[in-house]
Amino acid sequence: MRALELHSYTGWRTGLQPVEKPLPQPKPGQVLVKMAASPVNPADLAFMNGQYGVRKTLPTVPGWEGSGTVVKTGGGPLARFFLGRRVACAALDGYDGAWAEYMLTSPLRCIPLRRRVSDEQGAMMLVNPLSAWALIDLARRGKHRAIAQTAAAGALGRMLLRLGQHYRLSMVHIVRRQEQVELLRSLGAKHVLSTHQSDFDEQLQDICRHLGVTLALDAVAGEMTGRLLQAMPRRARVLVYGALSNSACQLHPGRLIFKKQQVSGFWLSDWLPRAGLLKLLHAGWQIQNWLDKELRTEVQARLPIEEARQGLELYVRGMTQGKVLFVPKS
Amino acid sequence: MRALELHSYTGWRTGLQPVEKPLPQPKPGQVLVKMAASPVNPADLAFMNGQYGVRKTLPTVPGWEGSGTVVKTGGGPLARFFLGRRVACAALDGYDGAWAEYMLTSPLRCIPLRRRVSDEQGAMMLVNPLSAWALIDLARRGKHRAIAQTAAAGALGRMLLRLGQHYRLSMVHIVRRQEQVELLRSLGAKHVLSTHQSDFDEQLQDICRHLGVTLALDAVAGEMTGRLLQAMPRRARVLVYGALSNSACQLHPGRLIFKKQQVSGFWLSDWLPRAGLLKLLHAGWQIQNWLDKELRTEVQARLPIEEARQGLELYVRGMTQGKVLFVPKS
Repeated sequence: MRALELHSYTGWRTGLQPVEKPLPQPKPGQVLVKMAASPVNPADLAFMNGQYGVRKTLPTVPGWEGSGTVVKTGGGPLARFFLGRRVACAALDGYDGAWAEYMLTSPLRCIPLRRRVSDEQGAMMLVNPLSAWALIDLARRGKHRAIAQTAAAGALGRMLLRLGQHYRLSMVHIVRRQEQVELLRSLGAKHVLSTHQSDFDEQLQDICRHLGVTLALDAVAGEMTGRLLQAMPRRARVLVYGALSNSACQLHPGRLIFKKQQVSGFWLSDWLPRAGLLKLLHAGWQIQNWLDKELRTEVQARLPIEEARQGLELYVRGMTQGKVLFVPKS
Repeated sequence: MRALELHSYTGWRTGLQPVEKPLPQPKPGQVLVKMAASPVNPADLAFMNGQYGVRKTLPTVPGWEGSGTVVKTGGGPLARFFLGRRVACAALDGYDGAWAEYMLTSPLRCIPLRRRVSDEQGAMMLVNPLSAWALIDLARRGKHRAIAQTAAAGALGRMLLRLGQHYRLSMVHIVRRQEQVELLRSLGAKHVLSTHQSDFDEQLQDICRHLGVTLALDAVAGEMTGRLLQAMPRRARVLVYGALSNSACQLHPGRLIFKKQQVSGFWLSDWLPRAGLLKLLHAGWQIQNWLDKELRTEVQARLPIEEARQGLELYVRGMTQGKVLFVPKS
């Protein structure tokens, strides 16, 4: 089969190349998925740079999620249940990932796709929609009535916006450019601020006070984390779930000491096992209902594995243009 | 009376000067303390720079704590109980502080001094000993068996060392210079690391793993906060209670996201009202028992108010040499 293989943790430009690999054989309890589509996520970029929470033995196939059809199993009742079904699937720790014609995984990492959900939308339903669902769930369980978010024009940011609208959470959306302000306004966002405005920090503080923002979801890190704290009231917290700035969070110690503000992190891989099966089933059902509305992901390009470099180039140049999908030729 | 007055939040070099002020008159429920001694604490330096959690209307008298004798009251049963007694006392929000011949305060901010406790040790028993007591109490209630601390050679750091010994907590003490390593070893510290060693970060990581350190008490902030996180395991946290580096905490976002580490702050003024009266009485009793042992503070200079500039100069040049006390002439 054709696959993309990472042979060094130096980023995709130098570390990634298309290769021919033997078709993997499922062991008992495993399933083999013939991949229909697999997206590029920021987590994949971090993984290829060696900056993700998991490092696999090299060489390895990147790609955390995708969709396809279960074409073979290694036996076992759960695996057999999935045979022939269309699924959204995530890569297994210690195994090759989704950027290939076929992926071996566990049925516990598969969600059967309902008929209304396309291969494309199904391929992107785990990392982003489930993260957005989990973040909004944390905000609601923490009784936060108003929240701020950074990188709001990105795929996950737009999902947070739509879920916030659904649950009537007041939200402040932070973006980097004026055209992103207009994009989010066109989606119905009320409070959008751009960091390119010279009075951004004052505006952010005003709006946080006005809405009573007590939680910020931060995908940027760097100086942004500290600016969020500065704008928020006593006891507010920042939940860092990404580091698009690629730099260390900078926090004024006085905000921690005198304002009792806190900073912590969110990682879907930590959240999943603690969420419980009932919550996951509920989330999976809701997410599939919403994949054509609240949780719809825009796609900017569909490319075969052989054109991975062009695809990754497109993605890093304009993440807010939509996802890039790898679509293996069959 | 003679007092030191701050007329701008520009630091003591430009903002502070000795003045003559009218003797304050206690209102009902207040007491007037004739001051015996009052120390310089890092919190006072931060206050004079405008970087503390409280700003008073200028001009104002700095000085958060001291000791003396209650010489007058404005009436009320509690205030009258203190008349004639020697007390440790803290400044009242919105009123002048302790760097003066007399200070007005509330009896709720006074602790009667037992006979065994000197004016000098009593003058320094609130800010540092109570903070050390509270931090160790937080560590013990959080079930941390091993903790790390920065600025370990300072007055508060040495108290944490002694309390850690008393409660048999494993501790890693972090200092900046070799002579401080020897100082702490002479006090019985087992694990002392100096940041001037080139392999400091590796050593810190090794010892944190070996002892199972899950909490760091950080008075330095800046890069140190992030280095502490890097050295500690999953789910560990840093409690920032000072910012001697005068710079923003820098944290690698991956430590928050993938390692579930957390950063928060500690401020005695927040802890006090939540501690409860019983715990405070218990702390006050224990601290006075220990003021000549575990919680003893070294003094490097005693100076009259008129020589404040020399005193502050001495203090900022060598905080680990001991406290500087202002001793008003009577």
